[in-house]
Amino acid sequence: MTQAVQSVSSEVTGDLYAEVRTFYARQMRRVDALDIEGFADTFTEDGVVVHANGARAEGRAEMVAGMYRNKPRYRDIAVRHWFDHLLIEPVEGAEEGELRVSYYSLVTLADREGRLTFEPTFTVEDVLVRRGGRLLTRERVIHRDLPVEF
Amino acid sequence: MTQAVQSVSSEVTGDLYAEVRTFYARQMRRVDALDIEGFADTFTEDGVVVHANGARAEGRAEMVAGMYRNKPRYRDIAVRHWFDHLLIEPVEGAEEGELRVSYYSLVTLADREGRLTFEPTFTVEDVLVRRGGRLLTRERVIHRDLPVEF
Amino acid sequence: MTQAVQSVSSEVTGDLYAEVRTFYARQMRRVDALDIEGFADTFTEDGVVVHANGARAEGRAEMVAGMYRNKPRYRDIAVRHWFDHLLIEPVEGAEEGELRVSYYSLVTLADREGRLTFEPTFTVEDVLVRRGGRLLTRERVIHRDLPVEF
Repeated sequence: MTQAVQSVSSEVTGDLYAEVRTFYARQMRRVDALDIEGFADTFTEDGVVVHANGARAEGRAEMVAGMYRNKPRYRDIAVRHWFDHLLIEPVEGAEEGELRVSYYSLVTLADREGRLTFEPTFTVEDVLVRRGGRLLTRERVIHRDLPVEF
Repeated sequence: MTQAVQSVSSEVTGDLYAEVRTFYARQMRRVDALDIEGFADTFTEDGVVVHANGARAEGRAEMVAGMYRNKPRYRDIAVRHWFDHLLIEPVEGAEEGELRVSYYSLVTLADREGRLTFEPTFTVEDVLVRRGGRLLTRERVIHRDLPVEF
Repeated sequence: MTQAVQSVSSEVTGDLYAEVRTFYARQMRRVDALDIEGFADTFTEDGVVVHANGARAEGRAEMVAGMYRNKPRYRDIAVRHWFDHLLIEPVEGAEEGELRVSYYSLVTLADREGRLTFEPTFTVEDVLVRRGGRLLTRERVIHRDLPVEF
């Protein structure tokens, strides 16, 4: 019997797909511009980020403080976050408009001469919520991609 | 006279675009997780894959056998397939819902420490069909990107 | 108070998102195939490209001449342009259907053996217009991504 990849045509409309991609297009421009407060403002006030190393920032204030501590890493470096393979899943029985979104992420680092280096690849799991008609990230869990054990 | 890039706004709706991208988001999670049977299940039973080196797998059983033979390549390696520039074209006069889809593909290989290496770039041509309302790949032809001769 | 990332769900429909992505999927296949005239035809007759080094091509004839001058760079090289994080914004009070589109761009160069090198990363700002129902690029400004000064 054919077991198809679950089609979500009835769940993820083109409009929602475009909206979510646009949300991340704006959010990533802010983080890549080192606009720390602007980036934090794309999260809910109580938003949580769990980094790949297990470090956890709870709430915008902690998020902002952590980003200022990390900022010196980006001196002389132009960082860009690239996303792919978004899976957008409305959360049943949750707050109206709540979405689980996961995606692949590639991070490029360009030096002043334009030479690229790469961070490891990551898979990210977000929870987005809609407040006043607009999307915000309430939770982000970042996983570094590891070899499959076998 | 202006010869525009063919606009396909009347052919590729936002809903179809989101559905196809979601199909690949799920299919690539399976292949990158080395979920060989799960990946094969995203093809029709008689699905065909023609690899860039000309090797041809016909049907899910051959596909699965070939992937098990290749699996040792991915010991200690986290592979990720990245797609871009999808062209989605409904096939006229074919099975209802049949689609030709082509896309660019970049493949990253991360070792246990997260250091990235890259495979060559590829362009892939798929035929997708809809069975029981869900998309499956019936044919995949993978081309390694070669320099233009001039 | 929550300052959300501006949601553009009412502006960017799924259909428009799919159409714009399809436009670029075709335009990039032409440039990457070194189809210089075909690529120029995706611009308006008076289309302008401002390169990252400040060089400016005005109109298709200049664009074509510049690309022929650059073509030898791509001998024995398969170039591919990858896009991400498109922001699509209809221009108010402009020509019907005029769009501002910005996006991230990564450029891979594969040699004959498939070994990849990378150009710097870029952010591109386009103005697209609709002529006879089809999209064309009227203006492209390419920025090399530079470190944030702080």
